[in-house]
This record gives sequence, C-alpha cells and structure tokens, in this order.
Amino acid sequence: MIKVAILGQGMVASHLAVGIERIRLGEIEPYGVPLANIRLPYKIEDIRIVKVYDVDDDKVGKSLYEVCSRLLGDAIKVPESLKDVYVSRGIHLGSMEGMPFRVEGLEESKGLEAAVASLVDDLKSEGVDVVVNLITTEYGEPFNDVERLKRAVASGNEASISASQAYAYVAAEYARERGPVAFVNGIPTPLANDSAFVDLYAERGSVLLGDDGATGATPLTADILEHLHERNRKVLYIAQFNIGGNTDFLALTVPQKNVMKEKTKSSIVRDILGYDAPHYIKPTGYLEPLGDKKFVSMHIGYKTFNGLEDELFVQIRINDSPAMAGNVVDTIRLAKIALDRGYKGTVYEINAFFMKKPGPPGARSIAKIVAYYNMLKWLYENRVIFGEDLPEAAREYVKSVTSA
Amino acid sequence: MIKVAILGQGMVASHLAVGIERIRLGEIEPYGVPLANIRLPYKIEDIRIVKVYDVDDDKVGKSLYEVCSRLLGDAIKVPESLKDVYVSRGIHLGSMEGMPFRVEGLEESKGLEAAVASLVDDLKSEGVDVVVNLITTEYGEPFNDVERLKRAVASGNEASISASQAYAYVAAEYARERGPVAFVNGIPTPLANDSAFVDLYAERGSVLLGDDGATGATPLTADILEHLHERNRKVLYIAQFNIGGNTDFLALTVPQKNVMKEKTKSSIVRDILGYDAPHYIKPTGYLEPLGDKKFVSMHIGYKTFNGLEDELFVQIRINDSPAMAGNVVDTIRLAKIALDRGYKGTVYEINAFFMKKPGPPGARSIAKIVAYYNMLKWLYENRVIFGEDLPEAAREYVKSVTSA
Amino acid sequence: MIKVAILGQGMVASHLAVGIERIRLGEIEPYGVPLANIRLPYKIEDIRIVKVYDVDDDKVGKSLYEVCSRLLGDAIKVPESLKDVYVSRGIHLGSMEGMPFRVEGLEESKGLEAAVASLVDDLKSEGVDVVVNLITTEYGEPFNDVERLKRAVASGNEASISASQAYAYVAAEYARERGPVAFVNGIPTPLANDSAFVDLYAERGSVLLGDDGATGATPLTADILEHLHERNRKVLYIAQFNIGGNTDFLALTVPQKNVMKEKTKSSIVRDILGYDAPHYIKPTGYLEPLGDKKFVSMHIGYKTFNGLEDELFVQIRINDSPAMAGNVVDTIRLAKIALDRGYKGTVYEINAFFMKKPGPPGARSIAKIVAYYNMLKWLYENRVIFGEDLPEAAREYVKSVTSA
Amino acid sequence: MIKVAILGQGMVASHLAVGIERIRLGEIEPYGVPLANIRLPYKIEDIRIVKVYDVDDDKVGKSLYEVCSRLLGDAIKVPESLKDVYVSRGIHLGSMEGMPFRVEGLEESKGLEAAVASLVDDLKSEGVDVVVNLITTEYGEPFNDVERLKRAVASGNEASISASQAYAYVAAEYARERGPVAFVNGIPTPLANDSAFVDLYAERGSVLLGDDGATGATPLTADILEHLHERNRKVLYIAQFNIGGNTDFLALTVPQKNVMKEKTKSSIVRDILGYDAPHYIKPTGYLEPLGDKKFVSMHIGYKTFNGLEDELFVQIRINDSPAMAGNVVDTIRLAKIALDRGYKGTVYEINAFFMKKPGPPGARSIAKIVAYYNMLKWLYENRVIFGEDLPEAAREYVKSVTSA
Repeated sequence: MIKVAILGQGMVASHLAVGIERIRLGEIEPYGVPLANIRLPYKIEDIRIVKVYDVDDDKVGKSLYEVCSRLLGDAIKVPESLKDVYVSRGIHLGSMEGMPFRVEGLEESKGLEAAVASLVDDLKSEGVDVVVNLITTEYGEPFNDVERLKRAVASGNEASISASQAYAYVAAEYARERGPVAFVNGIPTPLANDSAFVDLYAERGSVLLGDDGATGATPLTADILEHLHERNRKVLYIAQFNIGGNTDFLALTVPQKNVMKEKTKSSIVRDILGYDAPHYIKPTGYLEPLGDKKFVSMHIGYKTFNGLEDELFVQIRINDSPAMAGNVVDTIRLAKIALDRGYKGTVYEINAFFMKKPGPPGARSIAKIVAYYNMLKWLYENRVIFGEDLPEAAREYVKSVTSA
Repeated sequence: MIKVAILGQGMVASHLAVGIERIRLGEIEPYGVPLANIRLPYKIEDIRIVKVYDVDDDKVGKSLYEVCSRLLGDAIKVPESLKDVYVSRGIHLGSMEGMPFRVEGLEESKGLEAAVASLVDDLKSEGVDVVVNLITTEYGEPFNDVERLKRAVASGNEASISASQAYAYVAAEYARERGPVAFVNGIPTPLANDSAFVDLYAERGSVLLGDDGATGATPLTADILEHLHERNRKVLYIAQFNIGGNTDFLALTVPQKNVMKEKTKSSIVRDILGYDAPHYIKPTGYLEPLGDKKFVSMHIGYKTFNGLEDELFVQIRINDSPAMAGNVVDTIRLAKIALDRGYKGTVYEINAFFMKKPGPPGARSIAKIVAYYNMLKWLYENRVIFGEDLPEAAREYVKSVTSA
Repeated sequence: MIKVAILGQGMVASHLAVGIERIRLGEIEPYGVPLANIRLPYKIEDIRIVKVYDVDDDKVGKSLYEVCSRLLGDAIKVPESLKDVYVSRGIHLGSMEGMPFRVEGLEESKGLEAAVASLVDDLKSEGVDVVVNLITTEYGEPFNDVERLKRAVASGNEASISASQAYAYVAAEYARERGPVAFVNGIPTPLANDSAFVDLYAERGSVLLGDDGATGATPLTADILEHLHERNRKVLYIAQFNIGGNTDFLALTVPQKNVMKEKTKSSIVRDILGYDAPHYIKPTGYLEPLGDKKFVSMHIGYKTFNGLEDELFVQIRINDSPAMAGNVVDTIRLAKIALDRGYKGTVYEINAFFMKKPGPPGARSIAKIVAYYNMLKWLYENRVIFGEDLPEAAREYVKSVTSA
Repeated sequence: MIKVAILGQGMVASHLAVGIERIRLGEIEPYGVPLANIRLPYKIEDIRIVKVYDVDDDKVGKSLYEVCSRLLGDAIKVPESLKDVYVSRGIHLGSMEGMPFRVEGLEESKGLEAAVASLVDDLKSEGVDVVVNLITTEYGEPFNDVERLKRAVASGNEASISASQAYAYVAAEYARERGPVAFVNGIPTPLANDSAFVDLYAERGSVLLGDDGATGATPLTADILEHLHERNRKVLYIAQFNIGGNTDFLALTVPQKNVMKEKTKSSIVRDILGYDAPHYIKPTGYLEPLGDKKFVSMHIGYKTFNGLEDELFVQIRINDSPAMAGNVVDTIRLAKIALDRGYKGTVYEINAFFMKKPGPPGARSIAKIVAYYNMLKWLYENRVIFGEDLPEAAREYVKSVTSA
C-alpha cells in the first residue's frame, strides 16, 4: 500500500481519487495510466489517499465524496467509498490571489512556523509515503541554496516563500522525523529545478519529482518537434494556443501565473530542436463553457528538402485533468519505487517522461517518446521490471539497449 | 563517390537529382535529409547519378535537365549540370497500365531475357554502386522462394513478374558479375519483404533495403500512435485521408495499385498499438491542382483516464516528393555504408526508420522516433559514427545505450 | 395537427420521433429546428407520427419505442409515449441490396400492384397529411414523363422503379382518392427533380418537396463558397471528405448508392461559384466507432488580391441524423402550410433552403444563407408570417425586400 | 478617374498600389476585388493614387516604388510606374507610439493647426476625390458632438485627438473649400461610428465610410454564425485566435491598440446570434515569420436537435493585407459613386458589407452574405447597376427583391 497526501483538491485531484476508486471497483479500465500494462511492484489499487489539503472554504471540512461530486458529478458517478476522507485546511501564502474564491490558509490563524509544525504532525499521524502537489499554478522563484531556504522559513516572512515551497519544506521536515518520503510536484513552481530543494531532499534520504506535470499539448508538441528534427526539417515557426474553462485556465489569466506556465512550455523548443525556432506557445485564455476539456490549436511551418515549405495544423480537445491524473497515478507508484530502491534527491529518468520541466536544475527536456524508453530502461536496470513483464515492443527495445 | 542508377524519373527522382545538385552548388541547405548534421563517411555531394531509366516516351532520350525542368521548373531553378545525364529506356512489364502516358518497355522490343542482359551490361559499364527504385506504384506479389523467382525470369512469362522485381533481379545478376551492389526499394512492391529477394541478395553479398519509403502522413501517424500508446490511451478510431495531384495519386485511382498502398499504411496500427484499432487509412483521391503538395487530414479519438474521451485532429500540406527525395539521399549513403561494412541481405535498423514496411519479412513496424535512435546506435556500433560526430541529444542517447 | 407517415425507421426517423416527443414533454429546447423561433400556424407539437414503414425484419412489428431505444437508447432517454405506434412493412424493391440486414418488402409477398393498393388504403385509414421519405440512399433514375411512370407501375416490372418512386406514387394515388397530400423526399432519388413526379403531384393538387435533405457539410460548404464568391476570390480546389459509422455511410460503400450522393453534393460548386472549380467532394468511407457523429474535413485553396494564395481548413464532428431530423420538423410544417395555401407541384423557396438538390428540375442551388431569407420572404408574401412574428434581423430584412 | 490620397503607406497600401498597377498592366486578374465582375461606372483602372502620407522616416520622401519594393519585393514584381508618386509627411499624434520605428508627424515641427492647413492645401493642389485611412491601429474615443470635435482641433491640444480623427477633420475642411469629398476609414478608430464626424461630413455634403475593414476571420465568422443561427443551433462557445507577423499584429501587442480591435471583432456575436454566446475572439499574438499571411484558428461548439452537441474547427492561412487591399479597391469606387449620387454622411449599405463595425453609430452588424445582397440592391435602386450587368445569381436575386 502507498499512503498518499494530496495538496489541492481541484479537478486533477478529484479525477485521481475517483479514477483510482473506479479502477478498484472494476468499473473502468485503467486507460490513461501510462504503465498500467507493465507489472510494477505496486498496483494502481495499492494507492490510498489518506490526507487531502485545500484552502478553499467551500472544500475544507467536506468529504472527498462531496467535493468530487460537485466537480465531476455531472459526468461521472462518484463512488461512495470517498465518503471517508475529509479535506483539511492547508497552506495558502497568497497562492490563490486574484482568484474568485473565498480562501484561508492555516498560516493566517497560527503563523507559518506553527502551520508547518502542525502539518508535519498530521503527516506523521497517517504515516504518509508520498505527497503530491496539485495546487493551482502560483508564482515562485528558486532559492538555489538550502540555507537561504531554511532562513526564509525561519524568518516567518510569508512573502518570501510560496505555498508549494512551504509544503515541500513540510514534507522534508516530516522526513527528518519519520524517515524518507517522496514529494511529487505537479505544478510549475521550481522544486525539482531548485538545487535548494533537491539538496534538502537528498539530505533527508528522500525523493523529489517534478516540475509541472506534462500533459496536454506540450508532450505532443515535444514528440512532433522530435519527429521533424529527426528528418532535419527546419522549423520556421510554431504557434500554439491553449484555451479552457477550468480553474487552472482562470488562474492563468493572472499574468504572474501565466508567465510561470510559459517558461515550462517554451523550454522544449530549443532543447529538442537545438535552435530557438520562433514560437508563440502560451496558455491563451479562459472560456468557461469549454470546461475541463481544453482546446489546443497548433500550427507549425518548416522547410523540407529542395528548399520547399510544408505546413502542419493540429487541434485537440483534451480532458485536461484526467490526463494529468492518469500520470499522477504512475508518478506516485514510481516515487515509492524510487524510495524503496534507495534513491535520494530527484530522478531524471522519471521526470523526463512525466514532467514539462524535468529536474534536476539544468536537465534537458527530451522528446517524450525517447524519455519513455529511457524510463523503461531505468526500471529494468533497477530490476523493477523484467523482460517477461514488458509488452513485446518494449521488451525488444529494453533487451537491445541493455544487452551490450 | 557513390555511383547511383535511378529507376523511374518522376517527381521524387527529379527532386533528388535537383536537390543534390543545388546542395553541391551551395544554393540550399540540406534540410529534409535526416542525417545531414551527422558526419558520415559519404557526404551528400558524393552521390553521383550516373544512369536513369524510365518507360515514358516523353522522357526516354531526354536529358535529366529537360525532364526536371518540365516537372519542377515552375518552382525551382534546375541546375545546368543535369544536362549530362540522359534517360534510358527501362523495363515496363505493365507497371504503368491504366495511366494516361505513352509508355514502352525494353522487353517489348527484345524480350525479357535480353532486356535483363542489356541492363546488366549497362550497369556494368558505369560501375553502379546503388540502384534506387522510384517507379510508380505497381501491383506485385512476393515469390517467397529464390528458385521460384529464377524460374519466373527464365520462363520469359511477363505476367509472372513485375517491373520492380525484374529490376531487382537485374541488379542481383549484375552483382554476380561485378561484385556487391545495393538496391533501395522506395515503393510498396515486396522486395525486402520477400525472402526470395532477401536470400538472393545475401547469396550475392549484396544489400537490399525496403519497402516503400516512409514519408508524409504514415511516419507522423506512427509517432502519434506511439505517443498515445505510451500513455495507455485507448485508441477508439483513426480516420486518415490523403489527397494529392501528382502521378502517384493518379496511379492510386487504379484500384490494384491502391490496395498495395493501403497494406503498407495500415500495418502500423497493430504493430504500434498492439491491437487493431478501427481505422480508415487510405490514399483517398486525386485532385490535380494540389500538385505535389498533398493534403492529409487525420482524426483520432481515444479513451483517457477515468473513462473520458479526447479528440485529435491533424492536417498537413506536405510536399510529397521532396520529403521522399530527402530520405533517399540518406538511404543511398547508408546502403553504401552497409555494403562497405560487409552487410548481406537486408538491414532492419535502416529499414525501420526509412520504410513504411521494413524488411525482412515478418519484421515489426515501430515508432519512427524509436527507430531513429536504434539506427544511430547501429551506426555507432558499426563504428560509422563516433560520439563527437553526433548532435548533443543523440550523443547522450547513444552513449547511454551502448555504455553497458 | 399534422398527421405524418414516415418511410424508413432509421436514425433520422428515430431522432425525429424522439425529439418531437421530448419537445412536447418540455425536456429539451427545440434547437436545430430552423424556424423554431418564428411563429408558424403549426407548432412543433402539432406533428403526429401516425404511420411508420420499414422493410427490416428486426423493426417490422416492433413499436417505435422499441426501435428508437435500440438505436438511440445509449445516449437519450426514449419517451414511453412512443409505445403506441408500430412499424409496418413497406416497399423494398431492392433498395437495401448490398446491406447486411434481413429485409423483405410487401411487394415480395403480394406483388407490386397489390402492395401499392394496400399502402394507399393504409394512408386513407389514418388520414395522413404528409409523407416523409427517409429510407436508405438507393439508386434511381428520373422518369421525366408522367405516362412513362404510370406504365412502369402498371407493368409490375420491379426493376424499373425504385422504392422511393413507388412510395411517391402511392402517395399520389392516395391523393386522388382522399384529396391533396404532401410528400417530402429526404434522400437523393430524383422526385422533386423528376418532371414526371412534379407533374403528377400538380395534377393531384398535391405538394412534393425535395430532393436530399441538406444537412452536414454540404450546406456549410455552400455558404463558405458563397462567402468566397462574393469577394471574387478564385477557388483553386476543394477537397471534402466525409466519414461516419451509421447505416447511411455503410450504404455509401455500395458504389451505386455513392454515385447518387456525389451528384447532389457536387452540384453546388458550379451553381454558386459560376465555374467548375476542381473538387473532390464525396462520402469517403465507413468507420463504425464514429457512429452517427460523422467527421467532415474540408480544404479549400483560393487566389486573393494581387496574385497571392490563401488556404482554408475546416473540420466538423456533426451528429448526422439529428441535424436532418431538425430540418424534417420544419419541412413537414412547411409542406402542410404549402398545402393549406393551395400550392401544387413543388415549391422552390422551401426546397432551396432545405434540400441539397432543390426541385423543380433545372433549379439552381444557391447559398443557403440567401435561400433562408428568400424562404422568409415567401412566408411573408403568403401571409404566413407577419412582421411582428419575426426575430429582429429577419424582420428588417423582410421589410426591406417587400416594402417597395 | 478617381483621385485618391492614401494615409499610411504600410502593407495594405502597398498591395493596393501594386495590385491596381498590375491589373492595369494586365499582369493579374482582379481576384479579391468583390465587385470586379459587376459593371460599375468606374473601372479598377480608373483609380489613381495621387498623394500618400506616412510618418515613418524610412518612408517619407521615398517613391511608392521604393517603399513597395521593400515591403513586397520578395514575392511580387513591383511595377516601375510607381516611381512617380512620393510619400509625404503626415500627421502622427502618437498613433505609432510603442512601435519600433523612427517616426515624426508634421504637427511636431509646425503645430497641429498649421499641419491641418498645410494638408488641406495639399489635397486641394491635387483635387483629391477620395481619402483612404490605412494607418496602423491606434487608440481613439468618439467625440459624439461636432462642436466638441471642432473645439478639440482649435485647442491645439494634441492629446485630445487621434491621427485618424485629425485626418478626417482635414478632409472635411478640404471639402468646405473644394466641394464634396469621400473619406474611407479602414481602421477601428470610430469615425463612421462617431456622430460628430458623420454629422460633419453630412454638413459638408461629403461621404464617410467605415469603420475597420472587414477582412480575414471576422467576416467568415459572421457568415458561419449566421449559418448556425438560421438552423437555430445554439452556440455554446466560440474561440478564435489570430496571429501574424506584420506591423498590424506587432501594433496589437500594445494593449491599448488591442482593445480597439477586440471591440469591433466581438460585436458580431450578439448582433448575428441575438444572444451573447460565450466567446474569446482576439488578435492573439505576433509571430514574425508568419509575415503578412496570418494564421486564424477557430473552434465553435453548438447544440443541435434532440439535445446533442456538434463541434466545428476552422483554420485559415490568409494573406492579410491583400484581402484588405482588394476591398479598398471597391470602397474607393463605391465612395465615389455615393458622392456622385449625392449621398451625404455615411452609407450603411456599403459599410455593412465592407466594415467590421459598420456606421452610422448604433447600426447592426449583419451576416456578410446578407449585407452583400443588400448592397447589390442598393446599387440597383440607385440605378448604378442594371439587371444585365449582374452575374446570373445576383440578377435573379435583385430582380426578386425589387420587383414588388
């Protein structure tokens, strides 16, 4: 069993909770979970959500069943088994500023230091293995240095630290007392890309995966760019629009939050192509009736052989939160596996596939298809999977790359 | 220098001849040549087209300059250096049946056996290294057995053998007399997928690459399917339309030719996904004003996490022949390298990236992105390329997979 | 009240029956019914389906409720009120040939003449006002001459007449005995485009509307072409693909049926542009999991000012049968209104908006947006609607065109 | 002959000048000129550009030939006949603020009042008939009252008036001295939507057409919305992105300019549908390599019959400036015709087809297809065109609406 604490009970967290339950109940196939067909030491059903934190007054104190029913109930039957977990109040630190919700953070009533201590106790009481950060996109800058980070928390100056950073610090403190923990960062705040946090987690024998879950348009764009690059087609321009109607898109109308997203989205261009093709890649707007099924439109022009030009157009209607939730299922399992295998700090092989901006700091974004096979190889070399556990295509591949 | 004979002086062959000359003259960058940025033993400029065959009365006897000017002259300045090579009459065997051209094959005047002998002499007089088959898509069935193939040629029965098969036989005969040769099959007729031919080439110390050059929509579809597969998204349907205005699309309005194309295009679905997702993948029609820049439209629906469905739409306007010509540049170079390294029969590592239906018989289609890195690894293991010759991304990759 | 007989209880007829009931019950808004917001003498709820005919053994004898539940029940709650109408056996005459259903026509047991007589009696017993033809697309040629038509029926030669033609003849016979009736032809068989039938209906004081209900891609294409034409943009090519998973698309894999559809789809190009722009406009294929929500992809290139070229791409996922059913609601009401106003033969003003190939023979296809306002003007001049009944935009328009 | 003064020698003005010359020289067909096939009292060749104003130091003093060659010379051969017209310095008033060009307005050296007087003299010396405003999008608010406008100019306060407003005032002053003039406003600054200017022009016996030339995505969106509206399909959402690489898109990255464009683009939704469907319709960004051929992506969802939902996707690559230039050709001709027929103030029938925000103030946006036929009717009723001058489709239409 993997005991999980969730930070931010929004759409992604709700799809995660509901989806895992429905898989457990046999109601649905585990589609959208990348490694569902590969035998891992932990099954999807081994994941138990034991703690949930949020700052929205409309969620705190409610059961997961109530929150999920409100968010997903129009489309999906929410299992009754979610009635047993309740949403606790978490850290705010201004992360929801500019959003039309009534929010309050634990630090507002008791101060940051006490809030941290209280959350550490909370995790301890449940024996949490993996903490997953799914709060709304917020603004945050890296600390780069462990000591600077520790001083920021000690100062009690709430402006100097974001909610994600405070939560990651909480988990690290918890690890000191209880032993290794894993933290998965699904949003752009630099954690696995901040040497301060990577070093802190290494120091605590813990694992930190991140940053910014790679779902939707960015991974597909990465693979299409790799496709063009391998044919030496010269990309002349990339226009990519994203528009949706969920809270995340609403958050991105706040300019400071948008700039966080743009950074992680654009880094793929130079990393994959090797040159900075002119591009416009941005979350573009909020359009409420699109709901969680965002609309992505992409247009790429490139030079082909003999000086001629081709044009490519892609449109997607993609359920944003389930795509992310499916990935989170596996990052939770892989985080626990990395812990079990004694990994410390961050694990590039996992990040490279699952994250938009894979840590550690300075690591390259690579095409997701390449990252996928690298990850299988990592699993194989760590004796997590064996030849016979793999689907045929992967089996041949892993055999070929590891047999030398 | 690599001496090349071209079979079929259509759009692809014309872009090939013109593009290589323009690269030699420094008029254009080698975009669209996959391995242009990787140092190979042969440069693009080392390729010399020394013989060209066709059966169209409007081409035979004309210079490459004349033929290329007629086909490409509206858009591209054709280099004068192409005035020195002339189109010779080749084998027909009904391969252009149903097409609105006045054609005649060498075998019609002198019989098949004499035609074969005459072409062998021709290749010998020039010392050809690589023969490239770029004739119009034709119908053909595998022989499966070398002896059956030899008997078919000996019988003189023209209905029992297609033009591509006759040409491949010519090259093999030439190899017996002169030493190893390479044959690259750019069209769907099964040659690298026919054990008769693969065995014959192995027997002659020669190399046979094929079948059906992978350009346009199929490789992109392959990579997109791999992308979905790695996320365990369940593909519900694939609709893919292709329409163009070049001779190849005109040929595909002849049902027998179309069926050849459909086979190689559809094989990717099961090979990559592991199940036969319902699909409609076909060259759809001929629309003259689209010219060589075909229009591809693709629609894929799939199941994501928590039982929901996403939709993907792709449209491409792609210059069909230059895309193929750019690939042919590299298959010629790799074919010669394989010869130099002593390979015999066919080479899956090259075919898997460059071909729609990679030989040998029974080999799997894999995602092109995977095939690309496998090919780099093959080059590395054969000491064709070295770490320092590679672009950064590939360098890291090859190092990782070969370091064990 | 308008008493309606339906020919062919497929997807369209089922959406028609279910949709009208749900509107009557207040479960849904009348979206997709073009004139729903304009006060007409007949409300949507005034339509009563009193007779239904089909030849499919799995439908004949079942209630509308059973048939509709089978066809639509996955997506829509079928009202219980449909339990009162039963499917009767109708005319086949080979119209379902090549389709994977067990079918039998009334004429097979009793001969064509007796079948016609029996159906006339049937309509009489219910006092039917409007007959709507929604059978699967079939092959049929115009008679052009009333006497030839009458001789064909009298001859009893079943090969000389299609099911739609036989049904239209039945309704005309019924009109002779009972008085004026209206017949709405929703499929391509030429009826409103056959002077034989137009004359026959005129002779019987009856109204015949058709042919081939204009839904889906064709009307939108018509309006987009009109848009380009009004800017004098020179259309260079039009590629339009349609693929779906309903019975109609399955039927169109039968070549003879496909050719019927292609004719009505392509006629718009010359009619609207005034020249025959190169085009490929065809129902392209059958892909079962698309179901009734077909996929349409369109690509148009055109010359703009100063010799430059633009490109347009359109993709649609469209519920095929509901689009048609919504239109049928209004053609039924307008057919009855035309009857009430004493119209005889066919009515171009109605056909031009609702049909792909509007009768009478030789009539032009026009942009649907133009046809819409012409139809409003017709309603106004026939004193069916008055200024105050119209939405603001239409009111101003009709005032302007009729005030002179 | 129509003597024309152009304000702002950018891409549109350059395509206008070059296109008219090439038509005069017989080098190209007049595609993209809406009324090119309808016999008007003025031919395209009757248009003479006699004065051109700009504020860019790189353009002022240069010949049209030099400026057009720099802007269009890569793609189009610029006729030598454009060597005779030179670019004069015009009014700036901050209209290019925030743009990366070295600019200076006439008013900066001599004050606004003297600048106005000098430009009036200029127009007089050439006997200009039509002034066309094609300057870069600027911010501007309506005056609403003629006296306020006059006071603003008299005050010499440059912050109180925009460049377009000053130019429109210049032309009105010129009209007082010389007699009626026509002013065509191709940009969003409210002129034909400002009662101050409409009244001023009426007072001077002059004609003012505007505002904001309707090209590109907005007119097509208008016609598609009309298409959906006529079928009573309930539009659930509209997302429309625009991105380009010309100066206009660069200007729209300046927020104040963007907001001007958004207003004119969004007004169509409520005007055509009758309700304010949720929409995101905005010029989205600047991407230099797209150049003047902008990329538009549109996604519309709507409810169809029986409660189901359809989805529509449109992408366009459209040459922005030629589309506008083609329309300007006709607005110049129609402006002169309106003058000749004695019209005063603005003319809704012309604006409704050619403008995004047709004046007079408070006028409705209507579907462009409807506006087109209304415009033909206006021409017919003003005895500008006659039945026999019209293409067949328009002839029938005009006859029908005017015959009562």
